[in-house]
Amino acid sequence: MRIGVLTSGGDCPGLNAVIRSVVHRAVVDHEDEVIGFHDGWRGLLECDYRKLDLDAVSGILAQGGTILGSSRVQPAHLVDGVERARGHVAELGLDAIIPIGGEGTLKAANLLSEAGLPIVGVPKTIDNDIASTDVTFGFDTAVGVATEALDRLKTTAESHQRVLIVEVMGRHTGWIALHSGMAAGAHAIVVPERPFDIDELTARVGARFEAGKRFAIVVAAEGAKPRAGSMEFDEGGKDVYGHERFAGIARQLSTELEKRLGKEARPVILGHVQRGGTPTAYDRVLATRFGWHAVEAAHRGEFGMLTALRGTEIVMVPLAEAVQTLKTVPADRYAEAETVL
Amino acid sequence: MRIGVLTSGGDCPGLNAVIRSVVHRAVVDHEDEVIGFHDGWRGLLECDYRKLDLDAVSGILAQGGTILGSSRVQPAHLVDGVERARGHVAELGLDAIIPIGGEGTLKAANLLSEAGLPIVGVPKTIDNDIASTDVTFGFDTAVGVATEALDRLKTTAESHQRVLIVEVMGRHTGWIALHSGMAAGAHAIVVPERPFDIDELTARVGARFEAGKRFAIVVAAEGAKPRAGSMEFDEGGKDVYGHERFAGIARQLSTELEKRLGKEARPVILGHVQRGGTPTAYDRVLATRFGWHAVEAAHRGEFGMLTALRGTEIVMVPLAEAVQTLKTVPADRYAEAETVL
Amino acid sequence: MRIGVLTSGGDCPGLNAVIRSVVHRAVVDHEDEVIGFHDGWRGLLECDYRKLDLDAVSGILAQGGTILGSSRVQPAHLVDGVERARGHVAELGLDAIIPIGGEGTLKAANLLSEAGLPIVGVPKTIDNDIASTDVTFGFDTAVGVATEALDRLKTTAESHQRVLIVEVMGRHTGWIALHSGMAAGAHAIVVPERPFDIDELTARVGARFEAGKRFAIVVAAEGAKPRAGSMEFDEGGKDVYGHERFAGIARQLSTELEKRLGKEARPVILGHVQRGGTPTAYDRVLATRFGWHAVEAAHRGEFGMLTALRGTEIVMVPLAEAVQTLKTVPADRYAEAETVL
Amino acid sequence: MRIGVLTSGGDCPGLNAVIRSVVHRAVVDHEDEVIGFHDGWRGLLECDYRKLDLDAVSGILAQGGTILGSSRVQPAHLVDGVERARGHVAELGLDAIIPIGGEGTLKAANLLSEAGLPIVGVPKTIDNDIASTDVTFGFDTAVGVATEALDRLKTTAESHQRVLIVEVMGRHTGWIALHSGMAAGAHAIVVPERPFDIDELTARVGARFEAGKRFAIVVAAEGAKPRAGSMEFDEGGKDVYGHERFAGIARQLSTELEKRLGKEARPVILGHVQRGGTPTAYDRVLATRFGWHAVEAAHRGEFGMLTALRGTEIVMVPLAEAVQTLKTVPADRYAEAETVL
Repeated sequence: MRIGVLTSGGDCPGLNAVIRSVVHRAVVDHEDEVIGFHDGWRGLLECDYRKLDLDAVSGILAQGGTILGSSRVQPAHLVDGVERARGHVAELGLDAIIPIGGEGTLKAANLLSEAGLPIVGVPKTIDNDIASTDVTFGFDTAVGVATEALDRLKTTAESHQRVLIVEVMGRHTGWIALHSGMAAGAHAIVVPERPFDIDELTARVGARFEAGKRFAIVVAAEGAKPRAGSMEFDEGGKDVYGHERFAGIARQLSTELEKRLGKEARPVILGHVQRGGTPTAYDRVLATRFGWHAVEAAHRGEFGMLTALRGTEIVMVPLAEAVQTLKTVPADRYAEAETVL
Repeated sequence: MRIGVLTSGGDCPGLNAVIRSVVHRAVVDHEDEVIGFHDGWRGLLECDYRKLDLDAVSGILAQGGTILGSSRVQPAHLVDGVERARGHVAELGLDAIIPIGGEGTLKAANLLSEAGLPIVGVPKTIDNDIASTDVTFGFDTAVGVATEALDRLKTTAESHQRVLIVEVMGRHTGWIALHSGMAAGAHAIVVPERPFDIDELTARVGARFEAGKRFAIVVAAEGAKPRAGSMEFDEGGKDVYGHERFAGIARQLSTELEKRLGKEARPVILGHVQRGGTPTAYDRVLATRFGWHAVEAAHRGEFGMLTALRGTEIVMVPLAEAVQTLKTVPADRYAEAETVL
Repeated sequence: MRIGVLTSGGDCPGLNAVIRSVVHRAVVDHEDEVIGFHDGWRGLLECDYRKLDLDAVSGILAQGGTILGSSRVQPAHLVDGVERARGHVAELGLDAIIPIGGEGTLKAANLLSEAGLPIVGVPKTIDNDIASTDVTFGFDTAVGVATEALDRLKTTAESHQRVLIVEVMGRHTGWIALHSGMAAGAHAIVVPERPFDIDELTARVGARFEAGKRFAIVVAAEGAKPRAGSMEFDEGGKDVYGHERFAGIARQLSTELEKRLGKEARPVILGHVQRGGTPTAYDRVLATRFGWHAVEAAHRGEFGMLTALRGTEIVMVPLAEAVQTLKTVPADRYAEAETVL
Repeated sequence: MRIGVLTSGGDCPGLNAVIRSVVHRAVVDHEDEVIGFHDGWRGLLECDYRKLDLDAVSGILAQGGTILGSSRVQPAHLVDGVERARGHVAELGLDAIIPIGGEGTLKAANLLSEAGLPIVGVPKTIDNDIASTDVTFGFDTAVGVATEALDRLKTTAESHQRVLIVEVMGRHTGWIALHSGMAAGAHAIVVPERPFDIDELTARVGARFEAGKRFAIVVAAEGAKPRAGSMEFDEGGKDVYGHERFAGIARQLSTELEKRLGKEARPVILGHVQRGGTPTAYDRVLATRFGWHAVEAAHRGEFGMLTALRGTEIVMVPLAEAVQTLKTVPADRYAEAETVL
């Protein structure tokens, strides 16, 4: 069998582990040939690739990033994107294509699959918002990085007697905020799924100070927003000098909470550090299993499918189903986290 | 409601997170009273306890160990163990007891539950061998510690051109060996569930050297054993000086592989470092959820049950069921790990 | 002997290690009494303190923050600050005061020392800018945190083909930028000691892309500034909505480099995470030694002095001398770091 | 200029950082050519090498191990070792050789230097026992790994109410034991420099239990030994089955302390994990500076010298001097550590 693999979209710890696993399983156990396309779909569209043998994937398991490069190019960006992909697949004699990517990548994968190409997708997102799988690799690493930062920030917040508002990744869903906030014992967590009421949030944080505590940690997913009318909210943009104003939830909350509570409040934006570097053991195992099972699915001819974790099992689910809805934080998970004071 | 909590058995990262979560949920949300028994069942049997309020659990979320202490005392050790426990529960007016522990603890919990005491168990083991839950807290931390050690050992094995045999915890099951071995890209993994054939293992490791590699890492669960007749195996004991001989799978494998391969081989025994210290974010979230749901079960009157993770949900399963079988590494999980060379 | 200890100024990993060491050495070896003032100089000025025995410092060695609290209150803030301090020292029968703090704290310590109080200072700053000591504790931890972040950011920068400008602490000196930049292999480092020329910086970063590299990492100390006239530079302040504009070197450099290079550039501001949490082993050892030697100095009657590391030795240097100049990054250290491309 | 570099002896975090720094400084700033010999002196003796350009050292700064390989081969092992080395240096037109290694390597370097070869040595040992430098790279990483293990072991020792005897590296000197023991707050530290009296050690550990503590941590350098006559001590060897008996200080102390104290005691041997893997930021900076200054020394024609850290400066010291004595733990450093109880 001849298999093409590619990584598309933003950085995510575990990408190399998937690539390595695909190559190991295919080459060692099935005597397949594997090629890797450069820079995601761009490589497929421009027929830019290299052969991947065992040496090519030696030592990459624990490395962040992707040895194949990535880009945000999508087949749908080109008028003849699907045709070009089909042509190169035929030309290269590929029996399967394994794209590893997030929502956008999987939509593109579904498009190509519906056009008849032999696709087995592997879901990838640090945000953990893909509905058909319990977890995606990269998420555990992101939560781990955010939690370690929160652990450190707690002592500083306490020493300085401050409120710290810590912005973590999550434009559409609050999974990283929820898990890192729970893991670090944050005193309030705000997520996109549930617009916050600034009065309630102030009361919650204020209650800590009334109870004699000297600091508070608020974790805010970057996409968290106030309930309409609850608070003046600045969507960002350019300032009068033409500079990006870099508004953001942490900065606005810190201004607002400082004003309302009469306590020093400071924003901390964790940023890109959450999405790069060495994956945790958890993510390496999950990524390795996804790669292994993607190859198996290809050999069984199960195309148009996506690897997914359900409990402790890796199962295959239809791509079409996987891209329909975002997995958001349900109310009961949020309730679990809200107990902490 | 009045709730008693206790931690029993060996150390496990996340114990304090469960205790804290029980107290937070019970005291803050339900206005319960919580007491903590000292040193596991001993505290219940001797009525040795202290009150747990929010201050008592402040700052313990990320701490290893258990603020309540632990011991290996079991009610069944005393002729009147069950009666003493019943008496103290009545005396203290407890509406629920939440024991946090491993297999032995849960058997004791089941015994007391069958004797009519209001028990909600929380499973705890770094070994991940409790059948009724997808995962137990402590396991992720143990795997993380072992993986980090394996990452470091790889460079040394390579520089020194050696075979390293790394012994990880797991007397009865190979979960830590399997996951840390997969996460670190070990070249062979031996587990108790599947006695190894020394000829096959030698061939597997030898194939790496024939392929031009200069080192190999073998991960061995402490309970791994050779297939009967495959290799002389020393079960340990005292030497002629009366010293413990500290035999063990890693030492014996290193002697044997060095002899058979003609390559330097060295044992590394990771030991207790896998079961202590700060829990990972994953374990803190799981432990926190277990504590939260144990309190909920108590309030719903669901006794004789155990908290368990199934997929992404916390569910309650009967204690009686949970202690019947050990969760062992299934053949297909082992096959996934065997691909690596 | 009766000793008072206090921690003043911003958070710094190792503060608790000093406190613990002072108590251990004084109480165990000299049978002294130790009291700890709350919230730095405020505690001394308001006679707010508690007794510190072995139990009080048990388990704090590896903890970030300070069990005594801190504040930015200085004796010189009060008209009668020195007199109040003198009065409380007499009232409490103190034979020595050990203030642990940065530049401001040490100036206050010198003031009180010149007023005749028995002071032994312990220098504390993550910035490493105190001239009389080779290193201060907290610095190694800050550099470690920044380096780990840079390691992670490299893979993301590479995957996304971006320039990342990473802002680290250092308002007046570039030590953290220098060391973390060297440790992580940053491609350019800008520090306050040496205003950068934006044309040169652009050329340096651009050269990487011309050489076929796909990303670059610039580390910027927060106090780094362009050479006068080299680039329009915005000192921050409020925007037209009254929000803090949160200008800063990383944001401005990212705007400027993106414009000049035609490559995506993004700012990352590491912030407070550098100054909190568990100290590294290096910082714990240094902090422990400082505490130990401060007690010895007190017993020898060497007041008006500061503990300092010189090579591998702890020596005492006059407070008056220590506060005169800031230790800045010398040209030759900067040259060592500039080699990397 | 044409420079040859090699790494010799055991693994040590920071080796790759030196190699990279040599190449960067030499190639970028001096337009030198650099070659790397394979497997230490073996590469020089057998003229086995490769060219090292910027690409060859890309991405290795944070990697453990050595891209050049290592071995324990020494020129003195061959009758014509010095002559072969001289011949290959001439043949390859080398103007300088930079061997990176420990005591044995530096003795070999001195031998070749005295034979007229242009040598600039770089000291390497995790043991920190080279007298002419304040610190060697690798030591900080080893101490960090050991400290992290000790942090974890403390909670387990406490939960299990045990004495743990933790064996760390250090056959001839106790630097790792001293620093990790201080950093983790060990209750006793035994080092080769000061044979321990088993009665005193027992009393020290026993005092903790009498004071109501429930556990103790003893850190033992692997070369630590009892004072003559203080305790029966087994030097190891083979048992009656011909197996290595794997005696060792931790195992013997655990047997002895358990017997004397009547408390459970367990050995933990950290082993190779201390000498591999990613270097700390501290070690990366030191290694980078050593490489940089080795190239400078070569360009100044300062041969027969060794890079060394003195305070904050890198200086050059004669090789002949550097190999004369081992840097042992002085009594006053040991006294600092002994305060803890």
